[in-house]
Amino acid sequence: MSGDILVLNGPNLNLLGTRQPQVYGHDTLDGVVELCRRRAKKFGLTVTARQSNHEGLLIDWIHEARRSAAGIVINPGGLAHTSIVLRDAVVTVECPVVEVHISNIHAREEFRHQSYLTPVVDGVIAGLGVAGYALAVDYLAAKITR
Amino acid sequence: MSGDILVLNGPNLNLLGTRQPQVYGHDTLDGVVELCRRRAKKFGLTVTARQSNHEGLLIDWIHEARRSAAGIVINPGGLAHTSIVLRDAVVTVECPVVEVHISNIHAREEFRHQSYLTPVVDGVIAGLGVAGYALAVDYLAAKITR
Amino acid sequence: MSGDILVLNGPNLNLLGTRQPQVYGHDTLDGVVELCRRRAKKFGLTVTARQSNHEGLLIDWIHEARRSAAGIVINPGGLAHTSIVLRDAVVTVECPVVEVHISNIHAREEFRHQSYLTPVVDGVIAGLGVAGYALAVDYLAAKITR
Amino acid sequence: MSGDILVLNGPNLNLLGTRQPQVYGHDTLDGVVELCRRRAKKFGLTVTARQSNHEGLLIDWIHEARRSAAGIVINPGGLAHTSIVLRDAVVTVECPVVEVHISNIHAREEFRHQSYLTPVVDGVIAGLGVAGYALAVDYLAAKITR
Amino acid sequence: MSGDILVLNGPNLNLLGTRQPQVYGHDTLDGVVELCRRRAKKFGLTVTARQSNHEGLLIDWIHEARRSAAGIVINPGGLAHTSIVLRDAVVTVECPVVEVHISNIHAREEFRHQSYLTPVVDGVIAGLGVAGYALAVDYLAAKITR
Amino acid sequence: MSGDILVLNGPNLNLLGTRQPQVYGHDTLDGVVELCRRRAKKFGLTVTARQSNHEGLLIDWIHEARRSAAGIVINPGGLAHTSIVLRDAVVTVECPVVEVHISNIHAREEFRHQSYLTPVVDGVIAGLGVAGYALAVDYLAAKITR
Amino acid sequence: MSGDILVLNGPNLNLLGTRQPQVYGHDTLDGVVELCRRRAKKFGLTVTARQSNHEGLLIDWIHEARRSAAGIVINPGGLAHTSIVLRDAVVTVECPVVEVHISNIHAREEFRHQSYLTPVVDGVIAGLGVAGYALAVDYLAAKITR
Amino acid sequence: MSGDILVLNGPNLNLLGTRQPQVYGHDTLDGVVELCRRRAKKFGLTVTARQSNHEGLLIDWIHEARRSAAGIVINPGGLAHTSIVLRDAVVTVECPVVEVHISNIHAREEFRHQSYLTPVVDGVIAGLGVAGYALAVDYLAAKITR
Amino acid sequence: MSGDILVLNGPNLNLLGTRQPQVYGHDTLDGVVELCRRRAKKFGLTVTARQSNHEGLLIDWIHEARRSAAGIVINPGGLAHTSIVLRDAVVTVECPVVEVHISNIHAREEFRHQSYLTPVVDGVIAGLGVAGYALAVDYLAAKITR
Amino acid sequence: MSGDILVLNGPNLNLLGTRQPQVYGHDTLDGVVELCRRRAKKFGLTVTARQSNHEGLLIDWIHEARRSAAGIVINPGGLAHTSIVLRDAVVTVECPVVEVHISNIHAREEFRHQSYLTPVVDGVIAGLGVAGYALAVDYLAAKITR
Amino acid sequence: MSGDILVLNGPNLNLLGTRQPQVYGHDTLDGVVELCRRRAKKFGLTVTARQSNHEGLLIDWIHEARRSAAGIVINPGGLAHTSIVLRDAVVTVECPVVEVHISNIHAREEFRHQSYLTPVVDGVIAGLGVAGYALAVDYLAAKITR
Amino acid sequence: MSGDILVLNGPNLNLLGTRQPQVYGHDTLDGVVELCRRRAKKFGLTVTARQSNHEGLLIDWIHEARRSAAGIVINPGGLAHTSIVLRDAVVTVECPVVEVHISNIHAREEFRHQSYLTPVVDGVIAGLGVAGYALAVDYLAAKITR
Repeated sequence: MSGDILVLNGPNLNLLGTRQPQVYGHDTLDGVVELCRRRAKKFGLTVTARQSNHEGLLIDWIHEARRSAAGIVINPGGLAHTSIVLRDAVVTVECPVVEVHISNIHAREEFRHQSYLTPVVDGVIAGLGVAGYALAVDYLAAKITR
Repeated sequence: MSGDILVLNGPNLNLLGTRQPQVYGHDTLDGVVELCRRRAKKFGLTVTARQSNHEGLLIDWIHEARRSAAGIVINPGGLAHTSIVLRDAVVTVECPVVEVHISNIHAREEFRHQSYLTPVVDGVIAGLGVAGYALAVDYLAAKITR
Repeated sequence: MSGDILVLNGPNLNLLGTRQPQVYGHDTLDGVVELCRRRAKKFGLTVTARQSNHEGLLIDWIHEARRSAAGIVINPGGLAHTSIVLRDAVVTVECPVVEVHISNIHAREEFRHQSYLTPVVDGVIAGLGVAGYALAVDYLAAKITR
Repeated sequence: MSGDILVLNGPNLNLLGTRQPQVYGHDTLDGVVELCRRRAKKFGLTVTARQSNHEGLLIDWIHEARRSAAGIVINPGGLAHTSIVLRDAVVTVECPVVEVHISNIHAREEFRHQSYLTPVVDGVIAGLGVAGYALAVDYLAAKITR
Repeated sequence: MSGDILVLNGPNLNLLGTRQPQVYGHDTLDGVVELCRRRAKKFGLTVTARQSNHEGLLIDWIHEARRSAAGIVINPGGLAHTSIVLRDAVVTVECPVVEVHISNIHAREEFRHQSYLTPVVDGVIAGLGVAGYALAVDYLAAKITR
Repeated sequence: MSGDILVLNGPNLNLLGTRQPQVYGHDTLDGVVELCRRRAKKFGLTVTARQSNHEGLLIDWIHEARRSAAGIVINPGGLAHTSIVLRDAVVTVECPVVEVHISNIHAREEFRHQSYLTPVVDGVIAGLGVAGYALAVDYLAAKITR
Repeated sequence: MSGDILVLNGPNLNLLGTRQPQVYGHDTLDGVVELCRRRAKKFGLTVTARQSNHEGLLIDWIHEARRSAAGIVINPGGLAHTSIVLRDAVVTVECPVVEVHISNIHAREEFRHQSYLTPVVDGVIAGLGVAGYALAVDYLAAKITR
Repeated sequence: MSGDILVLNGPNLNLLGTRQPQVYGHDTLDGVVELCRRRAKKFGLTVTARQSNHEGLLIDWIHEARRSAAGIVINPGGLAHTSIVLRDAVVTVECPVVEVHISNIHAREEFRHQSYLTPVVDGVIAGLGVAGYALAVDYLAAKITR
Repeated sequence: MSGDILVLNGPNLNLLGTRQPQVYGHDTLDGVVELCRRRAKKFGLTVTARQSNHEGLLIDWIHEARRSAAGIVINPGGLAHTSIVLRDAVVTVECPVVEVHISNIHAREEFRHQSYLTPVVDGVIAGLGVAGYALAVDYLAAKITR
Repeated sequence: MSGDILVLNGPNLNLLGTRQPQVYGHDTLDGVVELCRRRAKKFGLTVTARQSNHEGLLIDWIHEARRSAAGIVINPGGLAHTSIVLRDAVVTVECPVVEVHISNIHAREEFRHQSYLTPVVDGVIAGLGVAGYALAVDYLAAKITR
Repeated sequence: MSGDILVLNGPNLNLLGTRQPQVYGHDTLDGVVELCRRRAKKFGLTVTARQSNHEGLLIDWIHEARRSAAGIVINPGGLAHTSIVLRDAVVTVECPVVEVHISNIHAREEFRHQSYLTPVVDGVIAGLGVAGYALAVDYLAAKITR
Repeated sequence: MSGDILVLNGPNLNLLGTRQPQVYGHDTLDGVVELCRRRAKKFGLTVTARQSNHEGLLIDWIHEARRSAAGIVINPGGLAHTSIVLRDAVVTVECPVVEVHISNIHAREEFRHQSYLTPVVDGVIAGLGVAGYALAVDYLAAKITR
């Protein structure tokens, strides 16, 4: 069995490991991608990783993924709470999608408690640190290779 | 009489015809542009068509249109409900502007019921499918060529 | 092909042309009806025009139209924002219905921003002046004679 | 023992049986009235039945009933959620009043969850179909003939 | 100096004196009209008095008054809190208008605290019983005969 | 025809007849059960009556009733307004369910106006005193023995 | 018959006639007091007039008036919308009290639409300019000398 | 390395596999516990599984777990949205805690979008079906055996 | 003079002294009960102390106390903010009741600012630590032995 | 041990005993002060009592008390619900502060349910009548003389 | 060029430098005034400085400043969020006015996020410490001496 | 002393001087930058100026500035009110940041009253026109060169 998982990271996640480590931990984005790759490999899957601070680019990539991806892990960063167009892009995708938040967004400011994306994805993992990415890959792999 | 109408489409509208056809119908964006062009031609007007998933680019184009366009048809997609900066760009335009939504946004999720753009455009056409674009061109043509 | 379009106007629209012309323009209701008739005629359709300040009468007429009308253009005036019973009447109708507002209700008082009718009609045209009626007839004609 | 029960039906209930049968069932208004009459007869009571799409007429009839009715069954239709004047009319009545809704208004749109009438009547029966009318008559009969 | 004052009473005010006297007092509507007439006569003015439970009729009468009345006293009853169309009718009138409420609506249920009419009339008198009508006539007379 | 109706009463209803008689009347819970039994017997049905102040026990009993009951009358008491888990339990039941409130909950404190249960039951009877139980049994009997 | 009416004016009303005349008119506070005095004299009543920008002083004066005043006209200015302690002071008074606002507070900013005082006074006159004071004196005089 | 993971399930989860399978899937609670056990065993951990419809019992068990558990997986069911006392119990626990919801609560009724528990646990997994339990055990195991 | 005071503690208060001492202090529940007993003894009163994490049990005990208690001190813990049924139970009691909260609930999360119980008890003491229990006993003793 | 307790009373509390005795009881402010003094004396403490209807004066006194008082009992009256500046003054004080309300503010109008002061004082006693002052002194004395 | 700038400080600002230095810094009010004076002197302007804890006095001073001041710097303290009468006083002033807040009010409690004054002054400087006063003087000086 | 100040301008600010001059004045963006440069030069500081209509680009630049800038002046334009990701980017910066708005955003539409950025920057200057930029540079210079 084969297939590609798109690991998509939104605004400010390029700073992972250097920005507010008390909130987001010390792992870098490269580390997270490597973690996902290793996990996916166990299931015979590959990983394509992308990050941008540009909402529009994230949407472009999701559109592309409609053809190429067998599953998507998306950490939309702060766009989760404000971007209806990102949600609209995700809705157009047919493969399984898992939303990941490194921090526990429900334990932070009121405006981070709701995500426009969550109602249109398979599910969400929040607050489990970068481990959340790995768990999301596990879930997708199980679904894809079932 | 002559003049150019800018037909501006926002995020995800490049997928028209392939995405959620039960909501947005089977016409493609190319088809919509062709429809507008034919309609405008009757009035001796031309059409410039642009689409982007990038809010910033849409704003850039609106700024350009301040000099070049005699009228604007804008379907902001999901940005209608979240983008104050798009509204601020539209406010700077002096030619007539019509907002178009293919689906009946008032019959969908609560967060689609209000548009930041509507209060600053001439008017809005929603729920009449891609025919809404043609009716918008008709309105603008009547106003431009009056 | 033949058929009748009901052009239904609600409270205070009998004063069209004389009341707040800066908001509603200088066209009279007779003028609007004539405009609709000319437009409908192009498609081989007729127009029945009715106006009342009585919500109950508007409902009675909508009930009648369930049998007689091939399409409805309705400008509910201020009832749009308060009348659930008018909405309930419109729901019972099977032919296509377009809601029209002469002024841009989204640019006026907060309480005019939502209409109980919009979620149950095909779509809405607002802010395009009396031209909105003509565009609504065009839309209905295309749908009826398709 | 004798007395008359007013069975008052508001806007759109004249269409009962023909309109949205999946919501309101297949019984006609005539059938409902007949059901009430049979039920009332068991207790030696008569029924006066009225329906109007006009709020004003419903109020006029309630005013009349202040002298003539021993009990009132009222299905205000959609006016329940918007009409303070209907509530004000009901308050002037001294005989027992039961509000009936055929459908389960609490399982429908948010705006149908509250009724202006309920706080000023004896009680309410909702969601039990046209059987609700019969149960209301039973209740009133027990109260009147006690 | 001459002129006619329209004294317009809305739903349920026909029951004045018999309905909830602890709230509305013991004066009848005829008594109120007579009071207004006497007061107006002092200033050489006449009074036309109308009451209806039908919102539509009240609007019709306001439309007529656009030509005939030098001033309007309006007690909209419970319509004050729900009727945008009544407000829209009042806006079309150019003579001075005073809104009167017999009871202190601000000391009653929350939903009676706001009136759609008040922002578009000269002013409002509430809670001063039927004396409020007389004071309103005094105000109008002073304005008309100035 | 045979079958069992579960009459389920929630917290504080054991005090019926002794607690706030001006709100809940003088009938005791035993009286209510007896009333239901007599009513059910007419239709050849039996009644199982249970009351608890423990939400968890009420849920346990509803689970049991999934196999044993042909219909359920439930007066959840104050849990109606706060218990999502009771609602979730009721949803698992396939037989018809009627919610009963002795007092007119809509004429009491704001927080009693909404019930989590109502949207997932057949319907609700509120404000008709203990007679509401009997009417609920009538409704269920008609549905069960149909 | 004799008695004293307290005419109490709150913050910023000392500037009457000089401040925002387009909102408050050209009459000065002295003129208003003189107007009240003349009106009261007709009924054999006297007027005590006080104004302060200090909430505490207004309360002190209301406390004094509990013994000395036969009626109170109070224009609380902007304190109407924020001062619970002023309301609490007014509640301790037993003579009739009328609240007056020169401008139509319901046609201004949202935060001016509700007054803490209104629910605890006899009634309110708003939007009728300084004439409102005179009408309030008339009302009080009628009540006092009845 | 050793330790015990408490897998705690709240109201209605005893019905797993039989209740609303379109929402919760076909796995039974026994199956879920077995899944957790197998997963935990890989890490040399044991599982204690408990389920109750009684909020109080769940709290008692959490109190006990303060001494005995090395980690907790909790699916509070509908209590998530209403139970502050359950949250207060969880706060007293020092070992890591993961909240699991089988269904995507953010894609369901508004009242299911917020959980009182989430802000006080490590994190949450929602919408990934019963796989969510396994992923939670993985997370806890990694944290415990680190 | 004699009598018994029921000191009732709700969920999680069994952990007093061990749970979040920075919020609730170091006194244990046994210590609190002893404190109350000593205080009551001064007035010749006895104390019955009960604690449970089960809402239903707390209600059962309040029902029993209707016959046996001369006064009640109740610390409902987090149920204060969610339990209408506990409120309903308290309402049925005729002896004086004081609500106690150890921490200053108004200085904590928004959802702890309102208690369903407070409006139906004599009064509330919050934020004064375990001393609040003693002050509550003093108050009740004064009232009982008066 | 020695020290002075400031007993500070806000607007309208000078009327205690004469104003709304059904709400505030028959004790006068002098009586309350005397009660506090006797209570304080037991602990070797003195009392300074002040009352004003002027918010500014209350703040001045609190500023003074920063040097002179060992504890503060404050009944802010209606200012509790509106005065941020009083709160800001209380925050500057380092000695313990107890807020007292004679009536049960949570059983009165909605706008009395929240106090700006409570989150910044040690705690609050409400609804226990003037006994609340004595209990507050007891609490402060225990804290001061500890 | 000459002129006087009024530097007006509201409640609790007399404590500047001694109160909550972590929020407001270590500068005293005298220091702030001296800073303003030095700054104003550069532009040939003088400074009048006033502070009060009495809202009424602040209003009196603003009224005086209508004649004497060429510009106003106002730090209303907590009154910013509650005082409509202060706003009404500021509106009567014709010279430029700048509102200053030492702390970043938008980073504090929700109730400090909105100021009644800001919409009616030239602009606001918040969060820049006492330097904000100096910048405000610079702005005013530039405007006055232009 | 040396250092660079980033002057960052968001969407639509490239149109400064040409767009809505009644709101934003006649200065161009080039003029504003020149003003900042001159001001900074006095303190021995340089200015880097950037503007974009693309949110993503603004974030990229803020990330770069984490290494290069000694202070940031940011006018986010309409993004202030909608962009959580811009806020998240600003939070990662350690140098002082001042938010500037040319117009008084608090005197405009409701949706412009709150900025996501303000709580995470040093402070804000709004409504003082382009002078606000200069004052911000002054503040930063004082802080940098201190």
